Amino acid sequence: MKIAFIGAGRLAANLAPALKNAGCDLIEVWSKTQASAEALAAYLDCKASWGRVGNATRKADLYVLSVKDSVLKEVIMELHFGREQALFAHTAGSLPLGLFSESGHERGAVFYPLQTFSKERIVDFSRVHFFIEAFKAADLELLIGLARCLSPLSNIHETSSAERRRLHLAAVFACNFANHCFALSDEVLHAADLPFDAMLPLIEETVQKLHELAPAQAQTGPAIRRDENVIGMHRAMLLDQPQLLAVYDVLTQSIQKMKH
Amino acid sequence: MKIAFIGAGRLAANLAPALKNAGCDLIEVWSKTQASAEALAAYLDCKASWGRVGNATRKADLYVLSVKDSVLKEVIMELHFGREQALFAHTAGSLPLGLFSESGHERGAVFYPLQTFSKERIVDFSRVHFFIEAFKAADLELLIGLARCLSPLSNIHETSSAERRRLHLAAVFACNFANHCFALSDEVLHAADLPFDAMLPLIEETVQKLHELAPAQAQTGPAIRRDENVIGMHRAMLLDQPQLLAVYDVLTQSIQKMKH
Repeated sequence: MKIAFIGAGRLAANLAPALKNAGCDLIEVWSKTQASAEALAAYLDCKASWGRVGNATRKADLYVLSVKDSVLKEVIMELHFGREQALFAHTAGSLPLGLFSESGHERGAVFYPLQTFSKERIVDFSRVHFFIEAFKAADLELLIGLARCLSPLSNIHETSSAERRRLHLAAVFACNFANHCFALSDEVLHAADLPFDAMLPLIEETVQKLHELAPAQAQTGPAIRRDENVIGMHRAMLLDQPQLLAVYDVLTQSIQKMKH
Repeated sequence: MKIAFIGAGRLAANLAPALKNAGCDLIEVWSKTQASAEALAAYLDCKASWGRVGNATRKADLYVLSVKDSVLKEVIMELHFGREQALFAHTAGSLPLGLFSESGHERGAVFYPLQTFSKERIVDFSRVHFFIEAFKAADLELLIGLARCLSPLSNIHETSSAERRRLHLAAVFACNFANHCFALSDEVLHAADLPFDAMLPLIEETVQKLHELAPAQAQTGPAIRRDENVIGMHRAMLLDQPQLLAVYDVLTQSIQKMKH
């Protein structure tokens, strides 16, 4: 099976090398810009194409579409011509499989690795969960086999678009919002020239606990203790940072309203 | 140096065994209730006392006070009589050293390990940062030496009450609020019978990134991308859960207002 990557962003920069290392046949990377297509293609030792997506190879059996959500539909429509028989799999958490039928492509699928990707770090895919969906049973099997090259079968799930959208929302809370709490913590410390590094063992223990306790059961701190003295003091410390105070208040209330 | 623990809660249940393992001489655990004092004392193979804090031993050189913030002042005042020469060290993030002078105890100090403690897990203190403060230089040295039994010198800091209060506020964001984001993620999944376990590799990668990137630099997700389509879809999914929607909105705005 010949694979082409459409898009050379953070997800592609992690997934494509992992697939190549697992022995897959990557034949081309397309990206809007020549520089980013060539950079990833050089790393993968395959061809590069750029400009209009119609410039991409027509010889692949599977096109992995990892482009911005906002352009995915038009990419599918343009890529469809001359590649009607190929399998297209998008990698987006929030976009439905139905996008392919709107674009008239019959062999549509979703191949969604639930992970946060950066170009600075290589993700270990053996721990990543994959959520897969396809119009045709044979395509579903094919993509399960592909995920199986990277991760154990217990991490591979057939999931509807509605479930995947919910997983993506859950990931926003667990990853994006938690990371923003780390950033706000950094901001609190920065104001007093204190180092964020001291928080790392605390953060790591907070995460380690999740292996043994549900997060609601693991909750600690002044909000859950309803320690009004400490909460009042914290609020006073944040009076000159209204955005941090707004976050402090809404999360404190949310902790107190949750059943623990 | 003979050490007594005043309080047998989660912090004491982690710190006292760690000190004993490091070769310290723990002579007694006091707790309000007989059962909790005896449980921890049995684990430490030392004496137990309970009831009024005046019942605690008078023979210790150092009393580690790990009681609720709200009762600390009265505990110090009652413990002071007959133990005027002993060193008292409290372990609270948000209470000032000045509490001891208000209570007339001259050898007051703070011994604050920045960590989240639960009775279900034993914390590895070799990675914990300690923040120490004392009225007398000799007591400061003594407590630095004590922390040194557990953690490398680079993790031990002399810190003012104002800095410690700020560290504690930062820890509320990094630990308590991040954990609540995990709990809200769990709630989003639970509504659709999806397992929280799939989030763990994502959460762990989010934390691993902090070793290489400042959290503001590591931010990903629809808020930072200003992906209004996805944000609008997420908000629609949360319309029947107003508390989650309030958190979603405040954190999304806060991410967008932060300089990244």
